[in-house]
Amino acid sequence: MTTVSGLTVGILGGTGDQGKGLARRFALGGLKVLIGSRSAERAREAAASIGAGAEGDENAAVAAAADLVIVAVPYEGHKALLESLRSELAGKIVVDCVNPLGFDKQGAYALPVEEGSAAQQAAAVLPDSRVVAAFHHVSAVLLMDPAVEKVDLDVLVLGDDREATDTVRALAEVLPGVRGVYGGRLRNAHQVEALTANIISINRRYKAHAGLRITDV
Amino acid sequence: MTTVSGLTVGILGGTGDQGKGLARRFALGGLKVLIGSRSAERAREAAASIGAGAEGDENAAVAAAADLVIVAVPYEGHKALLESLRSELAGKIVVDCVNPLGFDKQGAYALPVEEGSAAQQAAAVLPDSRVVAAFHHVSAVLLMDPAVEKVDLDVLVLGDDREATDTVRALAEVLPGVRGVYGGRLRNAHQVEALTANIISINRRYKAHAGLRITDV
Repeated sequence: MTTVSGLTVGILGGTGDQGKGLARRFALGGLKVLIGSRSAERAREAAASIGAGAEGDENAAVAAAADLVIVAVPYEGHKALLESLRSELAGKIVVDCVNPLGFDKQGAYALPVEEGSAAQQAAAVLPDSRVVAAFHHVSAVLLMDPAVEKVDLDVLVLGDDREATDTVRALAEVLPGVRGVYGGRLRNAHQVEALTANIISINRRYKAHAGLRITDV
Repeated sequence: MTTVSGLTVGILGGTGDQGKGLARRFALGGLKVLIGSRSAERAREAAASIGAGAEGDENAAVAAAADLVIVAVPYEGHKALLESLRSELAGKIVVDCVNPLGFDKQGAYALPVEEGSAAQQAAAVLPDSRVVAAFHHVSAVLLMDPAVEKVDLDVLVLGDDREATDTVRALAEVLPGVRGVYGGRLRNAHQVEALTANIISINRRYKAHAGLRITDV
């Protein structure tokens, strides 16, 4: 069984809703968490608001110091940020949870990505890193809510490196209530990212914070 | 509450695994089921093997006679078949459950579709029909297995016509154990179709017949 105890987890874009929510749950789960942001000051504020030993710094410093790095930045800045951190991220597991989505009057929809998906874009930009895709559908609201003891969903973990996906599955299971389920190779990441648009539609229709569970697994 | 009792359901490609499995469960659920195929003889054989009052005929005759038509043909023949049935399908709910997938040594992957998805292709070809996308992830094996009393998954139902998606949600709930859950507009059908590639990966890894459940709904 893969263990992630002792791992220092960096979260790029950790001051956003999704990144901060993951940071909070990982820190509460006993992991060392470093929150990254363009602004070291905002990163430190976010870390202080989480407590549990979380620290904050600029994205580059966090990428250099962490053992495993989660990318939780807006899609707009995704490619440029990763290009700028290629050496800091070399040799490390990089977990992409970016959802390239557009929004209009009819709701959310998937944006086309030249490389196929945000995760494949990360892999193209970071040839020396071990890119895994995961955490796309986790509700930031539930992650931040102190009244929510367990998050009722499975995290689909995609990648071409078995050891790396096993590590990220174990990391997902630090979130209370969550299972990490292998979800296929990186070339099948697009639809997992894009499905976030459907989950947003479900949330609107049913006034919910919907998640996925995989049955028979 | 929308009801589907009294509805005659036609299934184009009803001699394939997926179509036959749906036909069997709908017939057992008390619906009048017509199985369509290129060959009327093979359609009648499939209907006889199901029993429960199911009948078989050529695709065109089934499209003309049914109130609601499910499209369960291989993606290769999808567009041409629907083009040939435009008048028979006019005014009807057409439920597309086609998954455009390719397969190679690394498993399944999503094929690009010019219109965005099989369901959008159906809508483009059938401007006078009410196209809904659903039933993409239902395991044919579980549908056909007499030992499986309940199928443990939700059917995502997508479309731009509220009344039509409500009808198809009710139709999905004829399958024992299944919920029909609204899953967004037709423009977000691609990722639901493509996600079948991920489910195939999950089935291989975990030796499972995986399905999706939507939590908090």
